[in-house]
Amino acid sequence: MDKNNPIGIFDSGVGGLTVLKEVGRILPAENIIYLGDTARVPYGIRSAETVTRYSFECTEFLLRQDIKLLIVACNTVSAISLNKIREKVPIPVIGVIEPGARAAVNSTKNKKIGIIGTEATIKSSSYLRAIKSLDGDIEVCGLPCPLFVPLVEEGWTSGVIARLVVERYLKDIMDKGVDTLVLGCTHYPLLKGVIQDVMNDVCLVDSAIETAKVVKDVLAEMGMLIVRSCEGRRKFFVTDSTEKFINVGERFLQSRIEDITKIEL
Amino acid sequence: MDKNNPIGIFDSGVGGLTVLKEVGRILPAENIIYLGDTARVPYGIRSAETVTRYSFECTEFLLRQDIKLLIVACNTVSAISLNKIREKVPIPVIGVIEPGARAAVNSTKNKKIGIIGTEATIKSSSYLRAIKSLDGDIEVCGLPCPLFVPLVEEGWTSGVIARLVVERYLKDIMDKGVDTLVLGCTHYPLLKGVIQDVMNDVCLVDSAIETAKVVKDVLAEMGMLIVRSCEGRRKFFVTDSTEKFINVGERFLQSRIEDITKIEL
Repeated sequence: MDKNNPIGIFDSGVGGLTVLKEVGRILPAENIIYLGDTARVPYGIRSAETVTRYSFECTEFLLRQDIKLLIVACNTVSAISLNKIREKVPIPVIGVIEPGARAAVNSTKNKKIGIIGTEATIKSSSYLRAIKSLDGDIEVCGLPCPLFVPLVEEGWTSGVIARLVVERYLKDIMDKGVDTLVLGCTHYPLLKGVIQDVMNDVCLVDSAIETAKVVKDVLAEMGMLIVRSCEGRRKFFVTDSTEKFINVGERFLQSRIEDITKIEL
Repeated sequence: MDKNNPIGIFDSGVGGLTVLKEVGRILPAENIIYLGDTARVPYGIRSAETVTRYSFECTEFLLRQDIKLLIVACNTVSAISLNKIREKVPIPVIGVIEPGARAAVNSTKNKKIGIIGTEATIKSSSYLRAIKSLDGDIEVCGLPCPLFVPLVEEGWTSGVIARLVVERYLKDIMDKGVDTLVLGCTHYPLLKGVIQDVMNDVCLVDSAIETAKVVKDVLAEMGMLIVRSCEGRRKFFVTDSTEKFINVGERFLQSRIEDITKIEL
């Protein structure tokens, strides 16, 4: 295995680009390949069996690109299929739920944590289980926020509509007195500004940032970090039209998406 | 064929209940069976081949219930597979696009029509084609409104958030001077109040109402209308959990959903 081999990231769509952004920020020299299975998004509405099959197909595609580490940037796959992927592949596999859960447990003082995510993620109780396995005394309060993903995809991440929607969803979770809130969906970091305004001094845990930190630690332990001053390469693969992915994705990444290819899985 | 045989309606989810509501309003004595393929919603993100396969499965299920007429209450299926279904079945098949397009053409004075719908419906240009085939001189302006479906499913159909979202989407279409606006998504009739407030004296065409009128005309021509004073039966079938369907669906129908069964297609 060569250090210069890329890190592989896959997600059901554009959301995982928030993870790519954070990995690129703390590990700028790494080469990264991103796969968005945009033809079959969203995974959250599918059966566990189907999600596992799709995630194997994504994993196999990335393994063929000689990746040195795999990041599962999809909450649904992280909740359902992570261990099955780990059993199948010879490289480290990092999901987005464990890092977010651990950071939340480290952050909370009053042992009350809120989780926001898609309906599928909240229903799966995956963050709840991950947190309880670290500290069974913590109270966890989960809340689906179905309008956040379309708000982010429209680019309406600031202004009065975003503010009112965030206030409406988060009122109940604030009333419960949580001191830590996990952004349990890869889209939500784009609403972080508004959410922080509304939640005052509640600590926001961004699973994308926490996942990137774990990636750095694991690569360092393996002796596989690239040390150089120039920027790594970024390659993108999608399973549906590249056009919409670029339009929405550049807002997620806050940089250009250039080397992009449509593939079939 | 017996008059007392039910009318069959299918949709990918709850949206088609707006069509059921209007059919039930103008034909209260009819027996109606509704099938929502909620395990595979939304159809709009799938390939034409897959949509056609799913729609055949829904059609076959309803034919086994001895329906006398089939309503395809799904915009995606109406756009993609309507003729293929018509070729396969021996009963009348009515979609939601033709009735909405015809009503819009009859309504417009200045020959400028706006269409709002999901991204898939607008991209398919199905309303545009249906309108142009009736009057080639009409200007058609299509606009996807991705936040409307989650707004409706959350039940946020009035109040300041709904008003601001509607204003933001519809500003451009108002500036274009349309005098008629087609609600080209089965969810949108629930936002009709807010949309009418924002659009002032623009005529709103509700495809659900127009479809119900066509159903009445076709059954009358066939001599298959039930004439009696008591209410018809309503039966519901879904492919995913009945619970969420009932919660959201009762808002769509504005009446109780009682006789409901989960099936596999």
